[in-house]
This record gives sequence, C-alpha cells and structure tokens, in this order.
Amino acid sequence: MKKNSLPIIGLVAGLVLVAWSIMSSGDIVNFLDVPSAVITIAGSFCALLISFPMKTLIKIPSMMKMLMASPQDDRQKIVDIFSNLAKKARKDGLLALEDDIGTIEDELLVSGLQMIVDGVEPEIIRDIMELKLDTAERRHKSGQDVFVKWAELAPAFGMLGTLIGLIIMLAGLDDPSSIGAGMATALITTFYGALLANLIFIPIASNLSVQTDEEMFTGQMIIDGILEIQAGSNPRLLEEKLLTYLSPEEQKQLKTGKVDEKEARNYE
Amino acid sequence: MKKNSLPIIGLVAGLVLVAWSIMSSGDIVNFLDVPSAVITIAGSFCALLISFPMKTLIKIPSMMKMLMASPQDDRQKIVDIFSNLAKKARKDGLLALEDDIGTIEDELLVSGLQMIVDGVEPEIIRDIMELKLDTAERRHKSGQDVFVKWAELAPAFGMLGTLIGLIIMLAGLDDPSSIGAGMATALITTFYGALLANLIFIPIASNLSVQTDEEMFTGQMIIDGILEIQAGSNPRLLEEKLLTYLSPEEQKQLKTGKVDEKEARNYE
Amino acid sequence: MKKNSLPIIGLVAGLVLVAWSIMSSGDIVNFLDVPSAVITIAGSFCALLISFPMKTLIKIPSMMKMLMASPQDDRQKIVDIFSNLAKKARKDGLLALEDDIGTIEDELLVSGLQMIVDGVEPEIIRDIMELKLDTAERRHKSGQDVFVKWAELAPAFGMLGTLIGLIIMLAGLDDPSSIGAGMATALITTFYGALLANLIFIPIASNLSVQTDEEMFTGQMIIDGILEIQAGSNPRLLEEKLLTYLSPEEQKQLKTGKVDEKEARNYE
Amino acid sequence: MKKNSLPIIGLVAGLVLVAWSIMSSGDIVNFLDVPSAVITIAGSFCALLISFPMKTLIKIPSMMKMLMASPQDDRQKIVDIFSNLAKKARKDGLLALEDDIGTIEDELLVSGLQMIVDGVEPEIIRDIMELKLDTAERRHKSGQDVFVKWAELAPAFGMLGTLIGLIIMLAGLDDPSSIGAGMATALITTFYGALLANLIFIPIASNLSVQTDEEMFTGQMIIDGILEIQAGSNPRLLEEKLLTYLSPEEQKQLKTGKVDEKEARNYE
Amino acid sequence: MKKNSLPIIGLVAGLVLVAWSIMSSGDIVNFLDVPSAVITIAGSFCALLISFPMKTLIKIPSMMKMLMASPQDDRQKIVDIFSNLAKKARKDGLLALEDDIGTIEDELLVSGLQMIVDGVEPEIIRDIMELKLDTAERRHKSGQDVFVKWAELAPAFGMLGTLIGLIIMLAGLDDPSSIGAGMATALITTFYGALLANLIFIPIASNLSVQTDEEMFTGQMIIDGILEIQAGSNPRLLEEKLLTYLSPEEQKQLKTGKVDEKEARNYE
Repeated sequence: MKKNSLPIIGLVAGLVLVAWSIMSSGDIVNFLDVPSAVITIAGSFCALLISFPMKTLIKIPSMMKMLMASPQDDRQKIVDIFSNLAKKARKDGLLALEDDIGTIEDELLVSGLQMIVDGVEPEIIRDIMELKLDTAERRHKSGQDVFVKWAELAPAFGMLGTLIGLIIMLAGLDDPSSIGAGMATALITTFYGALLANLIFIPIASNLSVQTDEEMFTGQMIIDGILEIQAGSNPRLLEEKLLTYLSPEEQKQLKTGKVDEKEARNYE
Repeated sequence: MKKNSLPIIGLVAGLVLVAWSIMSSGDIVNFLDVPSAVITIAGSFCALLISFPMKTLIKIPSMMKMLMASPQDDRQKIVDIFSNLAKKARKDGLLALEDDIGTIEDELLVSGLQMIVDGVEPEIIRDIMELKLDTAERRHKSGQDVFVKWAELAPAFGMLGTLIGLIIMLAGLDDPSSIGAGMATALITTFYGALLANLIFIPIASNLSVQTDEEMFTGQMIIDGILEIQAGSNPRLLEEKLLTYLSPEEQKQLKTGKVDEKEARNYE
Repeated sequence: MKKNSLPIIGLVAGLVLVAWSIMSSGDIVNFLDVPSAVITIAGSFCALLISFPMKTLIKIPSMMKMLMASPQDDRQKIVDIFSNLAKKARKDGLLALEDDIGTIEDELLVSGLQMIVDGVEPEIIRDIMELKLDTAERRHKSGQDVFVKWAELAPAFGMLGTLIGLIIMLAGLDDPSSIGAGMATALITTFYGALLANLIFIPIASNLSVQTDEEMFTGQMIIDGILEIQAGSNPRLLEEKLLTYLSPEEQKQLKTGKVDEKEARNYE
Repeated sequence: MKKNSLPIIGLVAGLVLVAWSIMSSGDIVNFLDVPSAVITIAGSFCALLISFPMKTLIKIPSMMKMLMASPQDDRQKIVDIFSNLAKKARKDGLLALEDDIGTIEDELLVSGLQMIVDGVEPEIIRDIMELKLDTAERRHKSGQDVFVKWAELAPAFGMLGTLIGLIIMLAGLDDPSSIGAGMATALITTFYGALLANLIFIPIASNLSVQTDEEMFTGQMIIDGILEIQAGSNPRLLEEKLLTYLSPEEQKQLKTGKVDEKEARNYE
Repeated sequence: MKKNSLPIIGLVAGLVLVAWSIMSSGDIVNFLDVPSAVITIAGSFCALLISFPMKTLIKIPSMMKMLMASPQDDRQKIVDIFSNLAKKARKDGLLALEDDIGTIEDELLVSGLQMIVDGVEPEIIRDIMELKLDTAERRHKSGQDVFVKWAELAPAFGMLGTLIGLIIMLAGLDDPSSIGAGMATALITTFYGALLANLIFIPIASNLSVQTDEEMFTGQMIIDGILEIQAGSNPRLLEEKLLTYLSPEEQKQLKTGKVDEKEARNYE
C-alpha cells in the first residue's frame, strides 16, 4: 500500500499552528485541563458506545491507520494490466489467464479473473463483483459514520462541559472578580470540542470518504474490464474504454510513457 | 436474541462522567431541578404526542429494550444454514427442506423456505420476501423517527425553558446581585435538553438505525439464498455468492473454522 | 373517519406545562404581549402569503382538522374486504363485484373495483391508481409544506422582533436600569417563535407526514390487491400477500380473531 | 397570464407590520442606515456575481415579475381541451387537429399537437416533450437557485456588518456610555439581513418553486394527454385518466359545471 | 475559452465594499492582524491537507483560474455544427464526417464523431460517451468539494481563533478596561472566517457547480446529437430535437439569425 504522509503533516502542522497562536499572546497552560478533556473526549465516546456496535468501534484504530494510505487510484497500472490480459486472452484463450492470477495483487480483479477461468456466466460475474463492491462500500461507510457522528458529538459534549462550567460559576457568583477565570475555564471544553471536530474528526471522515469513492470508481473500472475480457473484446477498444476512467492528464502520461510500446504494436 | 451490554455501559459511563465533571468543581444539587426536568422532558413529549400516532409512541419502551440486542448480523451462521440446505435440496429435492423449517429461527428464512416447499413461483417469492423486508424496515423506521424527532425537540424545549427563566429574571431585575443565580437556573433546562439529546436520543436513534441496516442487509442475503436454492444452484457457487455478504475477516474466520469440514467435503 | 384526540391532548398539555412553568416562578402577564404576538404570527404569515398560492393557504384550517383524524391504517379490515372479494370473484366472476362497490367506503378501492368491472386492462388500472395515489400525495405534501415553512419562518420573525427590541433599547440607553425590562420584552418574540415552531408547527407537519405515509402504504396495498383480484389469484395466496403489509402484531390479532372463520374455511 | 396579487399584498403587509412594530416602541429613524443597507445588499450581491453567470443574474427582474403570476394550474381547462380534441380526432382523424393548433395558447401542448399532425412516432414525441419539460425546469431552477443563495448570503453579510461594527466599537472603547448606541448600529445589518432573507428571498424562492412544480405537473398531464390522443384512446377513458390529475374539489367543480354538457353527450 | 470577468469584478467590488464599510466608521488597521489571518487560513488549510489527497489539492489554482471561464453553454453553435454534420452525413455518408473532426474543438464531440467514423456500435458509443461525461463530472466535483469543505472549515477555524482569544483575555482579566480591545482582537478571526467563506469559498463552489452543470447538459446534448447522426435521422428533426436544449430566447436568436439560411434550404 502506498504511503501518504500528507494527513500526518496536516495534523501536526494544524496542532503546531494552534499552539503557536495560543503562545503568541497567552499561556498554553491555561489551555491544558484534564477534566475538560475527559468530559469532551470520553463523554462523546460514551455516546458512541450507545450509537454503534462493538464490531464497528474496534475498527477505529485501523481506520486511523488507513489515513496514511494513498487512495487506491493507480488506474494507469490497471489499464496496463487489462491491456496485457486482453492480448493474452485473444492469443491463448481465456483459460491462459489462470497463470496471471498469482501475479496480481488487487483482490477484486483476482476474483473476477478466477470466475472467468472457471467459466462462470457474465451476469453472475457482474452480480457477484458488484455485490463485493457494495459490501466493501458498506463496510467502509460504517467506519466513516463513526467519525461523522463523533464530529457531531464532540462539540455537543464540549458545549455540555461549558454549560456545566457556566452554571457552577453563576450559581456561586459571590465574587464578581472570579467571573473571568470561571468563563475561561468553562470555554475550554467548547474549544476542545471544536478543535477535535474541525481538525481531526471531520477531516478524517472526509479523507475516508474520498478513499472509498476512489476505490469504488476503480472497482467499477475493474468490473468493466473483466466483462470486456470475458466477452472477447478487441484489446484496443478495451483500452480505449478503460482510458475514459482516467483524467486527461493521466491519459497523457500513460500515452507518452508508452510511445515505444505503441510502435512495437504497430509491427504486430 | 444475543445480548449487547455496550449501550448500557455507554449510557451509565456517560452519566457518571457528567456527574463527576459537575462534582469535581461544584455542587450537583444545583443541577437537580424538577420543574426544569418537567418542562424539558414532558414538554418535548407533549410535542411528540402531536407528532406521532399512539401506535408508534407505545413502541418507545420496546425500542429501548432493543438497544440491548446485538445487531442481527450473524451472517456466518446463515452461510452454513444455506450451505446445508443447498446440499440437501440437491440430494433429496426441494420438498425435503420441509423438515428443516422447524429447526430454523429466522422468520424471513422460514417464510421463504415454506414458499419453496409450497411450490410458489420465484418472482412471487421475491416480491413477497422483499415486501416483508420493506414492511419491517418501515416499521423500524417509524420507531427511529420518534427518537430523531425527540432529539430535535428536547433541546428546543430546553431553550424554551431557558427563555422563560431569562425573561422572568430580566423582568424583575430589582436586585442585580441575583442575576447570577437566575441565569444559572435558566441555563439548567438548556443543559437538560442538550444532555438528553446527545447522550440518549441521538445515540439511540443511531443504534436503531444501524440495527435496521444490518437486518436489511441480512434479509437481502437470505432472499438471495432462497432464490438460489429454488433455482437449484450449485452448493459451492451458492456459498461463494453468500460469502460476498461477509467482511474479509468474517470470511477468514468461517474458512479456518471449517478446515476439517472442507477436507471432509473433498472426499465426497 | 376515526377520531384521534391524542394531538389535542398533546397540544393542551404542552400549553398548560409551559404556563405552569412560567407561573411557578414568575408572572404570566409578562409573557402576554399583543404586539410581540402580531409581529411573530402575522409577520410569518405575510411571508407565507408570498411563498404559497391562495389555493394552498386556504387548506390550512382543513389540515388542522385532519390532525384529529387517525391515520388511515386499518389494514386488517382491508385484508378482510379483499379476502371476501377474492372468494366472490372466484365463485361468481369479476362482474359480480359490482354489487360490492356501493358498500365500500375507500375511494381508491372503489375506483379500482369499478375499473375491474368495466374490464379495463391491468396496466391501465395500475397506471391510473398509481397516478391517483401520486396526486393525493402531492396534494397532501403541498399542505405539509406550509407548516414546514411556517415552522422555519416563525422563529425567524421572532428573532426579527427581538432584534427590533434590542436595537430600540440599545439606541436609547439613557437609563441603564431599564436594560433588564427592555431585554425581557425583546426576548418575548423569540419565545413566541420558538413555542409556535416546536409545540405547534413542527409537530403538525410531522403528524401530517405520518398520515400521508400511512395512506400511501395502504394505497399501495389496495393497488396490489386490486391487481391480484383481476388476475384471478388464489384467495389464500392473495390474503398471504396482503398480510405482509401488516405488522406481526396486527397479523396475530387478525389470525386470533379469525379462528372460527378459518375453521369454517376448512370445510369449504 | 392570470394575475396573482397575493405576494404583493404579503410583501407590503409584512413591511408595514415591521414598520409598525418599530414605531410602536421606538423611532424608525434608528433603523434607516444607508451604509448598513449597502454592506448587506450590495455585499451579498457581489458574492452572487461570483456565484452565477450573467445569463442567470439578468433573469432576476423577470423572476420577480413572475411572482405576480398565478401558478399554471388551470387543469380543468386542459381536461376540456383534450376532451374536445379526442372527440374530434375520433371523428375526423388526427390530421383534423391541425386547425386547433392556432387556437391553443400552451406552448407545450401546441408542440405536441404539431408532432401528432406531422406523424412523428410516439416514443420520439414523448422524448422531445419530456426534454422540453426538463429544459424548462432546469431554466426555472437556475433562477430559483439565485434567490436560495441570496437568502443564505444576505444574513451572512448582515453578520459581517455586525462584526465590523462590534470590532470598531470594542477597539475604541474609551467611552463606555457609547456602547449602547454602537451595539444598536452594529445590529442593524443583522436586522437587514434577516429581514431580506425571511420576508423577501426565502418566500420568493419558495413561490417560484411552487410555480415550477405546478407547471411540471401540468406538463406531465399534457404529455399523457397527447400520447393518449395519438394512440386513439376512447375520449371518455382519456378524460377519466386526465381527471386523476385534478384534486377531488376540482373534479367536483368540473363535473357540476358540465352537467348539461354530459346530458348532451348521452344523446350522442 | 471565453473570458468571464464577472467573478473578478464581484470579488474586487465585495472587498472594496467591506473596506469602505470599515473605513467609513473606523480604522482599517484594526482589521489587519497577521496571526489571526494565519490561524484562520493556514489552520483550515491544514484540515484540508488531512481531508483530501494531494492530487485534488493541487487543482486549487487551476480551479480558481476556471472562475474566469464562461460556462460552456454555447449551445446555439452546437446546433449549427450538428445541423451541418447531419446534412453532410445524409449526402456523403458517415465516413465523410472524418474531414470535419479536425475543425471541431469540443473534445467530447470529436471523440463521438471518431467513433461514428470507426463504425463503433451505438450502445457502445453511448456507454463510452456517458462514461466520459461521468468521469469529467466526478473530476470537477472533487475540485468543488475542496471549496465546499473550505467554506465550512474557515469559519470553524475563525471561531477557534476567537475562542483562543476569549480564553486568554478572560483568564488574565486583571484590567477590566482591556476587555474591549481583547474582545475586538478575538472577534477578528471570526470576521476573517466569515469573509473568506461568504465572499470567496461559497461563491467559488457555487460558480464551479454551475459550470459543471452547464457542461454536463451540453454533453448530454452532444451525445443525443451524435446518436441521431449515426442513426441517420432527418436533419430537420435532429435540429428540432437539439433546439429543445435551448431556452426560448436562445431559440429565437438562432432562428432570426438564420432566416436567409432557411430560405436557402427551401430550395434544396
């Protein structure tokens, strides 16, 4: 899996920025308060325990690790793979594809090829592959939902903490000079809730959603390719069709990188 | 029905956390106010009485009990059941499945098998089973809607209570020193509304929605399985298809747990 | 039309609660202010005059009367009716159903039966009945939209009133001791807006939406039944299919209440 | 086009109400501030210049004029027209409809009739007429979007104005006695933004949306009618079908108003 | 690509307005604060780094340049092109269209024509062209999503900055006379966040969305035209169909501008 260090850079830079912003005009000690952190983080996590089954919640660490993965969008390589598979299938028949199954990493592509080799009918291949894709999307989505919900609940528990602080402060308003400090303490949970939501949970949910989206699009491309290969399509037309899944820039890259290959093909 | 104590743990832990947070810097007595609780809870419940028919509202206690149920997602067992049914149907014919109906718990699966045994046509089986699923989803959703609406109305009535408190306080502002206590009292209804919504109603609605979603997905898997069995599909292909409804981890578990079974099958 | 007094009870109880909450700590006279009521209610109604055609607005009183109606969801009776119609049609032919048309109240069911008797083709019957249902849903929805919009506009005009009050108070801030009373008066429009929206308009919109939803579901059941009768389906299978529109509890009720009937049927 | 003065009445009444509400307790001069109006109205309009192409923005005046139009929902007249066309087509053939084209105003109906007379095939007539309807809906929607967006941006620029006022006031807080007046001035832009959004832009967007919706429904009715006429349907069945597009009240009106016509028909 | 200077005018005018509004009653120096700008802009950009892959983020400058492009909606020219192509195809056959490919700019139209000339089957042409359009829409949408997300995050980081300022100010509330200045500074990040969102990010997202929408509609028109040409449709009917994609005004313009052309056609 390709590494993507951008999210880590963003997270660290964001925290540094906030810390710098605090220190440039005040004392960061005023912003560190364990009880406030507990009510905001642990409180919203308790609400998550009610909201989701354990099966989903234990995915949180692995989803956070996924942050560092690049979206699965190397569609140029997939065009190449299919191009070669199509030529081979034309020359040696569909059964010859069995040898290639071991060399390919993508799980969906492998399962599709296996079904071609097993002689499964096209509609069933399409059904099973689309079902695989749907199941994967559903699984990813249930993980994203946790972060979306957390992004809603963290500021809500931050506000609850602020309300608790305000009520306590106002109820014991003997000493007006303590209002400032009391308000400051009360606002820290709101600050924690807003920081967690906007720098961590919302961006994570967004990142996972982009990754799922790219994976689904690539999956659709793979299903298209598998069905074309089974139908015995012309390799050039297959390539043409799969290329439409690429952006113009990706297409250009692929074409310039393949000049010699193309020349070679002219002599076939 | 499998028990799931997670939501109860989450709810109790959340309440303990909030209580601890209050007591660590103030007096919890300031946060207990019966009239405030009445306006927030009973007021929003009055609005629910206008919003939903009695038939839906009396489901509230049973929906709360459902919280403790695990989502109906033991899809590995369903693969096993269908695998056995498919083999039996191949060997002894569809009518032989009648004996199994009594041993199966899932209501949808039973009704599907009964229709197979009764010789109902595939399209009608699909129609009736999908209609059953839709009706169940509709019924579940009408229960969830109550909690979603309550989660909106509780903070709204909390705010109404706060407005009432503020107006009374401001109207009789003879004694400026009483402002603090008045504001504190006024804010308690907002606190109640936010606590009810974020720790109870929103998480319950979310939990029920996840359960419905899992049940619908399992239901779709059962419909698929029933139709494949009636069509006399190859047991191995049926198993392959139903496995796509499982996550990779569930598939792995199922396979490792079935090694000996598989070896046995090799000698069939 | 069955009466449903629940919404009235909810509305009255809600108003009593709010009044009690006010009177328990203050003077209700402070909460009665005609100009505030005018700007909130009449102001938002002016915006409704711009938003909707007269044809829709004059439905407001009749929609409010509909609040007291039970949702049209007596689906057990419909199963009975269709069960009898199907037996009769089997014995005496479709034309014999003409006699029953006069005894049935439901307008959609009557129109469907009439078309069966007139020998209209199934696809046209389905088209016309679904169009009838769509037109009814559209008409109901346009009425609900008024309350949904009103629920948005009432708090907005409440806030406008509060802004007006605040600006006037702040502009003439000669006497700081009058701030309290000024703020209290300003907040009353916000209070009115929130009360109208959350105790009246939002619940009404929700109630009407549930009623429409139940009516559409019943309508779909009737269309299904009409088409099965025209197709000459087996009465038992028809009943089985229509029963899937009922909840498990309703099915149980229907079955226990029909034991003797069923025994009788065994001797047919 | 029928006139509809309701929106104008609503707008004027709303403005009078707001003015009365201001004058009953304060001085309206405090609410007239040209710079505040400029930042709210012109500022949000600048954001619209970025958001939409000129082609869409120049439609604003004509859309405002459309406010005064009645929704195009005289579906009783359309039933009459189709009823006559169907009878004529039965008696004299489809080509005889050419004479009626000149007498009909509705552009969609005319284009449909012209295609019938030209002998265009049914699927193509349906395609072209639905495309016409889609294009019209798209065009209307792009105009509504302007008001929807403006309704979001006006309060946002009102808040920007208030922030500017607050910051200036707080930065130069030499004279605490000027706080009141400063705050009042700052709040006026919020007041303008809320008034514009809730009394003007939101209701206009809603009004236009209702008009579009009615026009689309009427358009669907016209397409249905055209296709039935071309198919040579029975005039009575055609009328029956088109009547389902009318509300029960409209149907009743149409029927009572046509008693004599019906009697006449009995002698045909 | 046609230039569209409207968005630049709107942006500059908006900024001038805001600056004028500030300067008319205060000192613009109070509104320039580098640390506040850093926390608002750079902070929200850090969150974007977590939310989106690099591939999407590097499109930000090119998307901003697209702002100055006119929406691709010169559909009158496309009607002309297709009209000529259809006549030529009728006279000289589909292969004759190859000469025109070089003279046409629109990439989608070119690829469609190329496939016609290559003799690709209609369903495949439709599939590939719709896939091209979907891929383009997907690519545009991922760019817009960045601005939509930024429009949410900028005010959120503005609020974070304000919270930081408030907490620091309240924590060190030794000198009550400094409250005003402290609050003013704290509010500046909120002001920045609101300004960025409402004058820049939201309008940009809206502008890009309108452009995508127009491009998709034009694309659908081109696919329609290509399929009609391949099917050998009557040039006049093709023109009639494509004209339905134009607004009534555009149709009128096109017709008046083509009077002589039409006369010429009469003599064909």
